Amino acid sequence: MIAYEASQGPSMLEDIRQRTISPEAAQALARIFKAMADPTRVRMLHALSQGELPVCDLAQLIGLSESAVSHQLSLLYALRIVRRRKHGRHVFYALDDEHIRRLIEQGMAHQAHQEAS
Amino acid sequence: MIAYEASQGPSMLEDIRQRTISPEAAQALARIFKAMADPTRVRMLHALSQGELPVCDLAQLIGLSESAVSHQLSLLYALRIVRRRKHGRHVFYALDDEHIRRLIEQGMAHQAHQEAS
Repeated sequence: MIAYEASQGPSMLEDIRQRTISPEAAQALARIFKAMADPTRVRMLHALSQGELPVCDLAQLIGLSESAVSHQLSLLYALRIVRRRKHGRHVFYALDDEHIRRLIEQGMAHQAHQEAS
Repeated sequence: MIAYEASQGPSMLEDIRQRTISPEAAQALARIFKAMADPTRVRMLHALSQGELPVCDLAQLIGLSESAVSHQLSLLYALRIVRRRKHGRHVFYALDDEHIRRLIEQGMAHQAHQEAS
């Protein structure tokens, strides 16, 4: 984290301006955070961050019906936050990539940092 | 990411259950993501991830009035996503901790990964 100093202000501002995020990228990022801005979905993603799970096991872990869990998973799948594969009668879900697992981890680390301070 | 296999199913499920996130922690995490689920706030946090900035510079970067930016910053401050310090007539804002910077980074990395695949 760079502290602001009057002497560096203008040049630092120019640097930041050049690296600024595009409105489209900001919108896409906000959409990911919005999909994760729900306690039930956070619990589901946290469970999936530990491994791939079939819908039935995830429902049991979260304490919701399979249909309620499937509904949330479809939403997360549409936003490519989770991926899925079919095997026999079961559908298995996993986080789409490592970055989603790290989003959950960093959020929890921030929370722990808050509580400790 | 651990792939699910029928043989490991029950013991893996028990492991995950033991490490499950509490409803309170899930709620706190969802609140952080919700605060970040807005394109303008994403742009502000992205700019702040590069260094501390006074409100006036941030407003100029984002292309909004200082009062609009201050309003969003107050919300982020209340949720301890940013911190602030006063110096003379100016108020300087920075991300509250490194975890918030990494949340932005990981979200962008996920997005880039999506676009590349």
